[in-house]
Amino acid sequence: MVKKENVMDLLVALCKRRGFIFPGSDIYGGLAGMWDYGPLGVALKNNIKKVWWNRFVENRDDMYATDAAILMNQKTWEASGHVDGFADPLVECKKCKHRFRADQISDAEKCSDCGGQLGEVKQFNMMFKTHVGAGENTASISYLRPETAQGMFVNFKNILDTFHPKLPFGMAQIGKAFRNEIAPRDFLFRAREFEQMEIEYFVNPKDWEKTFEHFRDEMKAFISELGLDSKKVHELEVPDGERAHYSKRTIDFEFDFPFGRKELYGLAYRADFDLKQHSEFSKVDLSYYDDETKERFFPHCIEPSFGLDRTVLAILADAYTEDEMGNENTSAITDDTVDKEAKPEKRVFLRLTPSVAPYKVAVFPLLRNKPELVKKAEEIYKTIKKVIPAVTFDDNGNIGKRYRRQDEIGTPYCITIDFETIEKGNGVTMRDRDTGKQERVGEGELLDKIKSDML
Amino acid sequence: MVKKENVMDLLVALCKRRGFIFPGSDIYGGLAGMWDYGPLGVALKNNIKKVWWNRFVENRDDMYATDAAILMNQKTWEASGHVDGFADPLVECKKCKHRFRADQISDAEKCSDCGGQLGEVKQFNMMFKTHVGAGENTASISYLRPETAQGMFVNFKNILDTFHPKLPFGMAQIGKAFRNEIAPRDFLFRAREFEQMEIEYFVNPKDWEKTFEHFRDEMKAFISELGLDSKKVHELEVPDGERAHYSKRTIDFEFDFPFGRKELYGLAYRADFDLKQHSEFSKVDLSYYDDETKERFFPHCIEPSFGLDRTVLAILADAYTEDEMGNENTSAITDDTVDKEAKPEKRVFLRLTPSVAPYKVAVFPLLRNKPELVKKAEEIYKTIKKVIPAVTFDDNGNIGKRYRRQDEIGTPYCITIDFETIEKGNGVTMRDRDTGKQERVGEGELLDKIKSDML
Repeated sequence: MVKKENVMDLLVALCKRRGFIFPGSDIYGGLAGMWDYGPLGVALKNNIKKVWWNRFVENRDDMYATDAAILMNQKTWEASGHVDGFADPLVECKKCKHRFRADQISDAEKCSDCGGQLGEVKQFNMMFKTHVGAGENTASISYLRPETAQGMFVNFKNILDTFHPKLPFGMAQIGKAFRNEIAPRDFLFRAREFEQMEIEYFVNPKDWEKTFEHFRDEMKAFISELGLDSKKVHELEVPDGERAHYSKRTIDFEFDFPFGRKELYGLAYRADFDLKQHSEFSKVDLSYYDDETKERFFPHCIEPSFGLDRTVLAILADAYTEDEMGNENTSAITDDTVDKEAKPEKRVFLRLTPSVAPYKVAVFPLLRNKPELVKKAEEIYKTIKKVIPAVTFDDNGNIGKRYRRQDEIGTPYCITIDFETIEKGNGVTMRDRDTGKQERVGEGELLDKIKSDML
Repeated sequence: MVKKENVMDLLVALCKRRGFIFPGSDIYGGLAGMWDYGPLGVALKNNIKKVWWNRFVENRDDMYATDAAILMNQKTWEASGHVDGFADPLVECKKCKHRFRADQISDAEKCSDCGGQLGEVKQFNMMFKTHVGAGENTASISYLRPETAQGMFVNFKNILDTFHPKLPFGMAQIGKAFRNEIAPRDFLFRAREFEQMEIEYFVNPKDWEKTFEHFRDEMKAFISELGLDSKKVHELEVPDGERAHYSKRTIDFEFDFPFGRKELYGLAYRADFDLKQHSEFSKVDLSYYDDETKERFFPHCIEPSFGLDRTVLAILADAYTEDEMGNENTSAITDDTVDKEAKPEKRVFLRLTPSVAPYKVAVFPLLRNKPELVKKAEEIYKTIKKVIPAVTFDDNGNIGKRYRRQDEIGTPYCITIDFETIEKGNGVTMRDRDTGKQERVGEGELLDKIKSDML
């Protein structure tokens, strides 16, 4: 077992080395709190989005997708309370001017960098500010949204007016959000730019508990679908006094990250706070008229909220595995170039569930200098790609190294074309990432076999 | 035929009325240049992304996906030339302080709003500025990226180091970009927040012309795949003197928008400008070593660039059609509630190609107050949804109105369950959006029929 405290360093290094995630603006020394996704990271992230979208939007009839602008009218953030209240306590060292989050330093007297004296605690608003239009004045201020949620509340009436949905119904959005963290840290966990997947689900107040439980179940089912170890996920019932004042119930879904148990997702009952606030600030009536009961009221809101980058991080951290494995590839392959005497050696692999793995399958010719093997492998690669686009081809280095490379990026299956394939028509070998076990599979059954193994 | 000058007003109204696109921060009076996508707009936009991604990323073996942060180290924009050069000429009225783009006003003397005198022309940088971190000083300045391109150039070396690709290869990205336009206008065409789909394709300089032609063909094929009328698309060879100084060739793909012929996409040969600039500014060597020729050089870059929101706008404007149609739904349906005497009436429909249409199919029970029809329709709806998730159900109002509603959002096929379906087992009616023609299709053949008609 790899030591917990080392996992983060190993993971960050693997992500960079293998093209999952790079530091943002890398060649310029980075920009703290920003991360750039490379090809494998994009694939992983897109797969997660797809699983989420299918479950929460596409497979339902009661969810209205939204994609609101990141830059919103500043009044939005007055109504939501972010202009006044979205702040972290900040202290500055009087000597070196280094700034810290006041709630994260143990000694409030001395600077941990230079030993200088710390100043008074100030409130620092975490919204990134900019100006829209040619003038820089109070009226032109806008903010990079600190959450996607408000983009849905301000469109609530548009949905009512265009689709005339009956309660209960929800709005859903995937998009970027930004928080000017004083101290970004823990890789993707506390980044300044990140992506959210959020739902605002509107109900008759009498139905809130039932709906809350429904989404609690759905969130657990989603976590399970991602392949996350359920033993590492903990529901924290946020107690009275710690919840936002308008919330009657909040559950944090916490995850055992290598750096501790931290919030992964949140499920909050926000009552009618948001629609009321926006009605008051915009002077636009956001109430709902119930045709059957002839009542007009503000729907109450249940908010399941998912951090996409935190999901990526949880999945990678959970999947990161080290074990020892012999040169397992010799079992089904008869070829002199394979070293049968090789001793078991350490390997790193990502135990990713197939639905999120960047590649589902890798295809290899056993040897790269045998044109007939390469040709056959390319043929099989193309056949698979037509049905399963997330397939990769590798003919670089020996077969053992290729297995290790695919293990490290979490590819569930490796298919090798060897001499038996082309000389005896005896199918290909298919190797399982987690066990290293190989079996021969007939060419004709290959696609069905891959598809059935991935379910 | 609807008059060109009216199409934009009609289109903006349709987009809001039917839930494609709303003004951003609508209830707060909007925020100029920002637009929020509703459920149908999200579906349309996601469909376009999918067509693009399949063609330019997934179906190729030479493209490396990227998703870089929107906020980048400020040095990026010094290297790219945006800090110094990304500006529009601005004039301010001395009297009412209204600001105009100097190149867009015909009379440089008097304000078109109040008749006041205009001031001198100044250069206004179009990048939105913000500050990252707790201090607001020169060092903390960052910008909302005005293009996605630079997020790829700064990751060029990361791709080289992790995937070791051989030339030619490309990087591809879909993401938001921001430009603080002095005068946002023409709906999605000149918005301040928008989405781009960009490729930076790297070649040996000797191969640039071949690659340029390849992407020229691919862009045309993409335009055709979107269903855009090729007669409205024009290639403009940007002449010497009008291209960026580093570009040896640029083609603008212009489209006949209702407000004139304007740039839709661009294809530019950028030579080695970007990699050289970033090498110089970052002090990181971004050259490429060719194993075969033993040469080291800066790869040259071909950049196909696509505005996603402009694509949405072009598709909607091109698809917007008005015609007259009788109560065509009576032909195959025998039911007394249908008014056979109805005269032809004006209808609006979106002639969307099925791959981009928000819904591919709509399913109706002929009458909503007949439980056996509703039950059967729901059953068929669910069967289709398992295979084609983009299906909708409607039992509201009479059948003619439902057809009109689906026409207006571009649904290619409407399926109606009537008494013949349940009493005689005589299949369902399937109606074509463009012709209004109906045919009866057996239940068992329905899915295959829909799939084959959509190809």
